[in-house]
Amino acid sequence: MNTMEAMLASLPDQYRWAADLTSPSLRAATGALVCGMGGSGIAGDVAGDVAAGAPVFVRKGYGIPGWAERLRPLVVAVSYSGNTEETLSGVEAADRAGLAIAAVSSGGALSRLARDHGWPLVEVPGGLQPRAAFGYLTGAVMRILESAGLVGETGLVEAATVTDELLGADLDGPGRRLADDLAEGLAGRITLIVASGSAAAAAYRWKTQINENAKSPAFTTTIPETDHNEIVGWSTLGSAIRRTVGVVALRDTHEPPRVAARFEPTLGRLSEGASLVGEVWAQGEHPLARIASLCVIGDMVSLRLARNAAVDPVPVEAIEVLKRELGET
Amino acid sequence: MNTMEAMLASLPDQYRWAADLTSPSLRAATGALVCGMGGSGIAGDVAGDVAAGAPVFVRKGYGIPGWAERLRPLVVAVSYSGNTEETLSGVEAADRAGLAIAAVSSGGALSRLARDHGWPLVEVPGGLQPRAAFGYLTGAVMRILESAGLVGETGLVEAATVTDELLGADLDGPGRRLADDLAEGLAGRITLIVASGSAAAAAYRWKTQINENAKSPAFTTTIPETDHNEIVGWSTLGSAIRRTVGVVALRDTHEPPRVAARFEPTLGRLSEGASLVGEVWAQGEHPLARIASLCVIGDMVSLRLARNAAVDPVPVEAIEVLKRELGET
Repeated sequence: MNTMEAMLASLPDQYRWAADLTSPSLRAATGALVCGMGGSGIAGDVAGDVAAGAPVFVRKGYGIPGWAERLRPLVVAVSYSGNTEETLSGVEAADRAGLAIAAVSSGGALSRLARDHGWPLVEVPGGLQPRAAFGYLTGAVMRILESAGLVGETGLVEAATVTDELLGADLDGPGRRLADDLAEGLAGRITLIVASGSAAAAAYRWKTQINENAKSPAFTTTIPETDHNEIVGWSTLGSAIRRTVGVVALRDTHEPPRVAARFEPTLGRLSEGASLVGEVWAQGEHPLARIASLCVIGDMVSLRLARNAAVDPVPVEAIEVLKRELGET
Repeated sequence: MNTMEAMLASLPDQYRWAADLTSPSLRAATGALVCGMGGSGIAGDVAGDVAAGAPVFVRKGYGIPGWAERLRPLVVAVSYSGNTEETLSGVEAADRAGLAIAAVSSGGALSRLARDHGWPLVEVPGGLQPRAAFGYLTGAVMRILESAGLVGETGLVEAATVTDELLGADLDGPGRRLADDLAEGLAGRITLIVASGSAAAAAYRWKTQINENAKSPAFTTTIPETDHNEIVGWSTLGSAIRRTVGVVALRDTHEPPRVAARFEPTLGRLSEGASLVGEVWAQGEHPLARIASLCVIGDMVSLRLARNAAVDPVPVEAIEVLKRELGET
């Protein structure tokens, strides 16, 4: 196992770690705004998809949206390093607006700010790539939303179980063969991930993992919106493009019937211009478990893509160089 | 001018039509949920970006989000045909939940429902492709949000002016040369549109217009999130991919300095794997005018792409076939 594969093997224990946390002490909230970027912000996307019944929105950028001052959500700031400048600017704006704040971080400025201000803080174990701390970050956000009365049962224990089963011992579980097959079909291609709304966060996680681990392009599209524009976009360009793009569908066992009915004809239209590579079905019952089961296959696909292309999944030099150019710490 | 070009030439008058509407009669709302798909839903994306200070969210799918029952937004149902099944299902759910509803349509079931229930209805002129009614639909949504106290000055008159200037007489204005140059660079390629958050709706409009008018693939990415994953995705695949993807940046004159500073290094990273084709700067002052100025260039690019590829921009057969397969009316 390389470094990133070893981090992936720890994912079930990350969910369990979060399930075993002492509940953060929080007042009841009417909604939440998760501020976070990249591998930290994805925790907000997942929590938002799981919460569904509660207003959980995600801010990926500087500051906070103007409406936050009206709706007064609990602001959950998530930055693995604790030093993400966009997230810190959101925290500053939230504090200025007098909003309740909770923080998730492994250290850095965000942890210091939380301690100084007495904000609830879930400090996650450090030393990982932010995207490899997915279970810690998602779990911490879920526990915060649970304490604020915005989600009921978190689903973290089931997420650990399904992830464990798919990974298997030494990453040789039933998810492995599926991931290897998909990676073979996606090699050297742009990946297009098709999902329904309930799996949109999982699709985005696939995209970012393929970007960062395999250093390859990937995009997402969401059914039913796909059927109103995307499917027309594949009928003109010729076989050169077809060879370039590989389509993977993420299927949720709980798709509403009218959504489920759209997959086959949608994939049929897309296949006129792109190559269908495969389908992945969610496992488990709780929404978090289902999302986690889709995400872990994407993790494995991205690492297999990297291995097949002899790419080290760990370094993300472009991100580091850009941060230096922008004078970020 | 072909049919779609003639429809595009009517865009400034569409904004003026909306500016001249009698104000719809609506109670003050604390927020809005715009339900709409494709060329209708985009009106909600634009309105959401313009409103900024008010909570205006968009639903692209069946039903309404669970949180709508808690936050009780004004539901603005937008369906050009009036028969979009996802939007009608959202209206049904909103009605069942006792939410206030306003409708935008050119007829069909949505207009009938609005009349039967006495919901405020803005009926827009019919007979166009939904995506060619962008000015009517966006304008109608803006006027509804204005009446509900969620936006101040709508910016529709300035949107008409900047669009008029860029289009020029017989679509031969200053936007034409820019659009022609961009279309030349994007020919036969997958388009990747890079924008900051304030231009995200414009970027999505570009994507869907290129999909539907030019029948070509297009995707979007939003700065600063781009810098946390997307930029790594272009460093491994070789020159075959580079030739396949063309990047266009949409620039807003009102980008915050830290966002503006990211464009050059971000485009630099992307150019390692994709071809930079060009940059488009927003015109005008009001947020709606700036978004409209970016959108109209995208409209022209999509039509020029279609013309250059000898593709008729009007028919979107894949969408119609799929609707028939699903048994929609």
